[in-house]
Amino acid sequence: MANRIRLGMVGGGAGAFIGAVHRIAARIDGDYDLVAGALSSNPDNARQSAADLGIAPDRAYTSYEEMAQKEAARPDGIEAVSIVTPNHVHFGPAKAFLEAGIHVICDKPITASIADARALAQVKPKNGAKFLLTHNYTGYPLIRQARDLVASGALGKIRVVQAEYPQDWLTNAADPGNKQASWRTDPARSGAGGAIGDIGTHAYNLARFVTGLKTEAVSADLQSFVPGRQLDDNVHILLRFEGGARGMLWASQVAVGSENGLQLRVYGEKAGLEWRQDNPNYMWFTEFGKPKQLLTRGGAISAPPAASMNVRIPSGHPEGYLEAFATLYHQFAEVIRGKGQDFEPLLPSLADGVEGMEFIMASVASSKADGKWTKFSEV
Amino acid sequence: MANRIRLGMVGGGAGAFIGAVHRIAARIDGDYDLVAGALSSNPDNARQSAADLGIAPDRAYTSYEEMAQKEAARPDGIEAVSIVTPNHVHFGPAKAFLEAGIHVICDKPITASIADARALAQVKPKNGAKFLLTHNYTGYPLIRQARDLVASGALGKIRVVQAEYPQDWLTNAADPGNKQASWRTDPARSGAGGAIGDIGTHAYNLARFVTGLKTEAVSADLQSFVPGRQLDDNVHILLRFEGGARGMLWASQVAVGSENGLQLRVYGEKAGLEWRQDNPNYMWFTEFGKPKQLLTRGGAISAPPAASMNVRIPSGHPEGYLEAFATLYHQFAEVIRGKGQDFEPLLPSLADGVEGMEFIMASVASSKADGKWTKFSEV
Amino acid sequence: MANRIRLGMVGGGAGAFIGAVHRIAARIDGDYDLVAGALSSNPDNARQSAADLGIAPDRAYTSYEEMAQKEAARPDGIEAVSIVTPNHVHFGPAKAFLEAGIHVICDKPITASIADARALAQVKPKNGAKFLLTHNYTGYPLIRQARDLVASGALGKIRVVQAEYPQDWLTNAADPGNKQASWRTDPARSGAGGAIGDIGTHAYNLARFVTGLKTEAVSADLQSFVPGRQLDDNVHILLRFEGGARGMLWASQVAVGSENGLQLRVYGEKAGLEWRQDNPNYMWFTEFGKPKQLLTRGGAISAPPAASMNVRIPSGHPEGYLEAFATLYHQFAEVIRGKGQDFEPLLPSLADGVEGMEFIMASVASSKADGKWTKFSEV
Amino acid sequence: MANRIRLGMVGGGAGAFIGAVHRIAARIDGDYDLVAGALSSNPDNARQSAADLGIAPDRAYTSYEEMAQKEAARPDGIEAVSIVTPNHVHFGPAKAFLEAGIHVICDKPITASIADARALAQVKPKNGAKFLLTHNYTGYPLIRQARDLVASGALGKIRVVQAEYPQDWLTNAADPGNKQASWRTDPARSGAGGAIGDIGTHAYNLARFVTGLKTEAVSADLQSFVPGRQLDDNVHILLRFEGGARGMLWASQVAVGSENGLQLRVYGEKAGLEWRQDNPNYMWFTEFGKPKQLLTRGGAISAPPAASMNVRIPSGHPEGYLEAFATLYHQFAEVIRGKGQDFEPLLPSLADGVEGMEFIMASVASSKADGKWTKFSEV
Repeated sequence: MANRIRLGMVGGGAGAFIGAVHRIAARIDGDYDLVAGALSSNPDNARQSAADLGIAPDRAYTSYEEMAQKEAARPDGIEAVSIVTPNHVHFGPAKAFLEAGIHVICDKPITASIADARALAQVKPKNGAKFLLTHNYTGYPLIRQARDLVASGALGKIRVVQAEYPQDWLTNAADPGNKQASWRTDPARSGAGGAIGDIGTHAYNLARFVTGLKTEAVSADLQSFVPGRQLDDNVHILLRFEGGARGMLWASQVAVGSENGLQLRVYGEKAGLEWRQDNPNYMWFTEFGKPKQLLTRGGAISAPPAASMNVRIPSGHPEGYLEAFATLYHQFAEVIRGKGQDFEPLLPSLADGVEGMEFIMASVASSKADGKWTKFSEV
Repeated sequence: MANRIRLGMVGGGAGAFIGAVHRIAARIDGDYDLVAGALSSNPDNARQSAADLGIAPDRAYTSYEEMAQKEAARPDGIEAVSIVTPNHVHFGPAKAFLEAGIHVICDKPITASIADARALAQVKPKNGAKFLLTHNYTGYPLIRQARDLVASGALGKIRVVQAEYPQDWLTNAADPGNKQASWRTDPARSGAGGAIGDIGTHAYNLARFVTGLKTEAVSADLQSFVPGRQLDDNVHILLRFEGGARGMLWASQVAVGSENGLQLRVYGEKAGLEWRQDNPNYMWFTEFGKPKQLLTRGGAISAPPAASMNVRIPSGHPEGYLEAFATLYHQFAEVIRGKGQDFEPLLPSLADGVEGMEFIMASVASSKADGKWTKFSEV
Repeated sequence: MANRIRLGMVGGGAGAFIGAVHRIAARIDGDYDLVAGALSSNPDNARQSAADLGIAPDRAYTSYEEMAQKEAARPDGIEAVSIVTPNHVHFGPAKAFLEAGIHVICDKPITASIADARALAQVKPKNGAKFLLTHNYTGYPLIRQARDLVASGALGKIRVVQAEYPQDWLTNAADPGNKQASWRTDPARSGAGGAIGDIGTHAYNLARFVTGLKTEAVSADLQSFVPGRQLDDNVHILLRFEGGARGMLWASQVAVGSENGLQLRVYGEKAGLEWRQDNPNYMWFTEFGKPKQLLTRGGAISAPPAASMNVRIPSGHPEGYLEAFATLYHQFAEVIRGKGQDFEPLLPSLADGVEGMEFIMASVASSKADGKWTKFSEV
Repeated sequence: MANRIRLGMVGGGAGAFIGAVHRIAARIDGDYDLVAGALSSNPDNARQSAADLGIAPDRAYTSYEEMAQKEAARPDGIEAVSIVTPNHVHFGPAKAFLEAGIHVICDKPITASIADARALAQVKPKNGAKFLLTHNYTGYPLIRQARDLVASGALGKIRVVQAEYPQDWLTNAADPGNKQASWRTDPARSGAGGAIGDIGTHAYNLARFVTGLKTEAVSADLQSFVPGRQLDDNVHILLRFEGGARGMLWASQVAVGSENGLQLRVYGEKAGLEWRQDNPNYMWFTEFGKPKQLLTRGGAISAPPAASMNVRIPSGHPEGYLEAFATLYHQFAEVIRGKGQDFEPLLPSLADGVEGMEFIMASVASSKADGKWTKFSEV
């Protein structure tokens, strides 16, 4: 790409998982150059990780505050930053960079507490700096098409929404040496939600993204099956949406045999949709009384613009998780360049992040109150 | 078969659906001869249907009371009777035939009210007459194998149970001329539950049959989406089992694109199971940390006796709904012949029928009480 | 059924596989009563097997010749007979019963040699006795629908036909005690073909049934992978059809991981079809440029008469192998009763049996001639 | 990446398909910087495409000869070049860059004629310049694992190989304005093979890569179904491998309902493997007499090094076509850096390219000779 955006990164040093994913996503469409980083709070790791990534030594920081300040002051300073730290280190850097006028790409959930989320929503970004929350599953072309189908009325009024995200990697107590597991099961770093924050929010966000339905209240039953675990590892939630639709959401980290079984099913008065992330290039679409149709990414049904704009290769050649992630990066780059008016409404926002935290907190509160139907405004 | 059991039928005249299914199930293994019937309360239909089925005119009745009395008095009278009427006409004939010393095969749910169910459980059958409730899905060989796997400890302690049964045939208001739809949506004939009674009980029974877990309480959100419908057409239920396991149950008659999507998933501390009725000859079995295995009916893993005793053809040749149904008929025949001690504990019983009614009533009560966790003993 | 056909059976004594399948198929729709049998050439087995099946002792024969003669002479003699012996004992009884005026239901392949097949085709049946060859897969409702779709022109002119039938049960040398394996791998009892006769003919017949294309020539490469095996256990065949269509056929008994993976794919100028026997209630149908559609047995697309006439239960409830087999029995019963004019053209005939033998012999000859394209008229 | 390789590109200007794929593949792992290009023979397109990609104007060439000469002379000249032109423009640039000491990454098939392929194999690369043929499907992690499983003996001696690659995009005569279709159906630009060269070679290469079996001879039946088409659009091939294994290969561009249905099935004496490209993160592995296992990319079975070295994200999150393609680019970068000794034997080579052309030519010759078994040495 001729016109690359200068990118920095907070977190993502050696041994991190999601940082590497963000870097690939930033590279796929050639929109970014990674030129600065506060990759680790450990100075040696920060320095070495930066060197491995081709970041100049003077732009390898050990604190995000310093990075925000110095980069904002450079004529060739970063234009955007990716925040890929554990949840409790999202708020600080997000606030710092927005206030420094640097666009923020932030992993989800937005913060570790709802207070932080709401505080972040009050920040005044300098120079109109933008914010992207990487609810990456919304980048899948068929999820975009699902949203368009619902919005177009093809399903009629929505009645039932079934969302689920089972995994099994926390079936046993986590090995203390497992970095990914340890912070995700620690309330101090993860916040009040375990499975609900890590994956339940993805399922919730996906349901909201596709249906556009507003949530009225939730009734939850959260459970920690593994002895000694402080956060939930299995989440059963009933949902009531404005207008009368009903939903079920299941997220689990102890469902043996499940890898990343994110699934969304939506049923309206006229048609139904079914999609699974583990084979994301296909989606079932059934109009009542007609045979089931298997829609394919980039396939026979002329996809509406929102879906087609992020299809890189022909149907039948699978795209995956990284491409969906990259679509968010690419479309955010277009927004930064002032060419993203079509995309911007599709990109997960700060408001989505606040709602995600409300979903977590309302579910936790409902579960503590024996399943009492709880509104987001109550938390 | 050399030694056929003389069978009668109540209900199942021309135009009925489930009666024909019962007759095929009774024929498949050659254990029964259908020799009498009160096939319809309409005399012409009763007479003509009997003639079509080769039943002698003097054994074509129009009332089950008369049939029970006269058949019990004949030296060649029926030994067993199949009751295939709508729910509100289960109690009467079941009581009459049991008290006449005639074995009863009864479609589910057992009755239309919990009072009737409990009253039926108090009936003293003459001569030790037996009772079979046709929760037919329990006859699938892999469901039997699933039960054995759980009982053997292969899954470890059960944590999570996900059961669902979506259909779409009642997406719109039923055509008044649709006999199947009309009684199922009429409280006077169906009882207090719509989808929950017709298909929710199947999903519930299947979960109970496979896991052996006892239910502690349910929290339900029942909905009637179709305007004017008096009974629920979508059911969302959370379950708590004794010992701490948690469950979710979804049944729907408005999930567009679903035919008979009965599905059961069970996750324990050591392994998980996944099975779908629309492709019932396969079941996923995954031990934690190992690859998923696809078990097949009669396939490579030497099935335990309970599964293998009802496999008629080699693996890879699909058996279906009718064979599973027939297995209940065959094994009940063996029970009647006094050779069924291995099978009898597997066959759905009067107690299962009462529990099914408790499940319906507790769910209805919970839904009315805004999802209050409700025990079966409270209804 | 009021009007049952009196049926006899040749073969199918204790320990046989396909005999039991035929008996279930005969029972499912209630069209037959099994009243006579030459179930085994071993007198003890013949007598005991007959007793187990409720056949009167005076109608338990040890020779089919005696059975044909005596039954034809009885006023209540059998009207039809099922021949379920190994291939080399098809010709004799088929001829005997046809000449005795008794309808014949014969397992496939029709005979063990092409000379026998052609001789059988010359037999003059007494009193118009009919012949049914149990190419049972043609009884699947969706296979009937596939045939109707092709015949209706929905696929346009057919271009490509891919048929396959992989199994793995003969991966190793057969245990001498395995009755099923031993006769199937013995040229004296099976004829010149191994896998090609046992399962290749099924795949070939299915392709012919669905497409109606006439075969021009075959080019084959047959192989026996297991040391010491005298007959082929893997079959690779190219097909040329009149009119220019091309085909591939693969049958194997050594494809590890395959149970009964019969599959048919047909592609025309306008649309394509894909069907698998291990999940026979579903079929893919794709019109060029449109999304793939999943047709279901008895489902949303109003099935044409040929398909719908043999659907017993609603879509989403699986029917299987036994029901497809039973459909042949039921429709043959209707033919016998003189009510089968709609069905008769659909039922596998003596001519189909002769063509199946030609397919076997032409393939064997081609393989011996290093794949030379061979016409059926050359064998 | 700290140490990026300077890359050029021949072909891939605006409107091209595979050039964009190569560029994404080059970016995903951050190993390359695209700094020069002869992107089109049309000067305007070449200049504009270069500008769009951020290539400096003085490195935007209109002839590959000039590019090879000038880049070789620059101190910061390209180290590697990607050749993404139609088949008939592979030989010229490949020879020029190899002789200029620049590493070559070349799309497949290697050339448009076998003479060119063999000539290219005789070229003496300057300074040990390396050659990569982008048979991209070999980069899928599970294909690497399949190869390891075969090599380890887990399948035992291989008996049967079934490879297929159906598409449907050329079902009708190509629109003259369709750039992708027009050169692929033109012998002058594509060479002697149509479907066989475009996709048949992929299926063939994949079978060879996984099994390691050497081909003894082929028997082919090639067809052009679309009137006026000069090259084959459907390919049926039988294969004989050294050691006795047998194979079937089907490639089609007229199989309605198929997008990119590349599939490989391999059966040995002890186990079988089945893999499909449209869901490439899963592979069936069945040991004889045991249940089928579903292996997943990066999943439970500890993948051998060759597979695991190119897994970027956890199992259950799908990787796709672009990641497999990128793996070839990444591993070739490591080879260029002198750190690729483990990878180099896995990367498709010039010899693979020559063999691919032999496969095409032998198949074309066999088809013309009515299916005569043809050795590669005969063409």
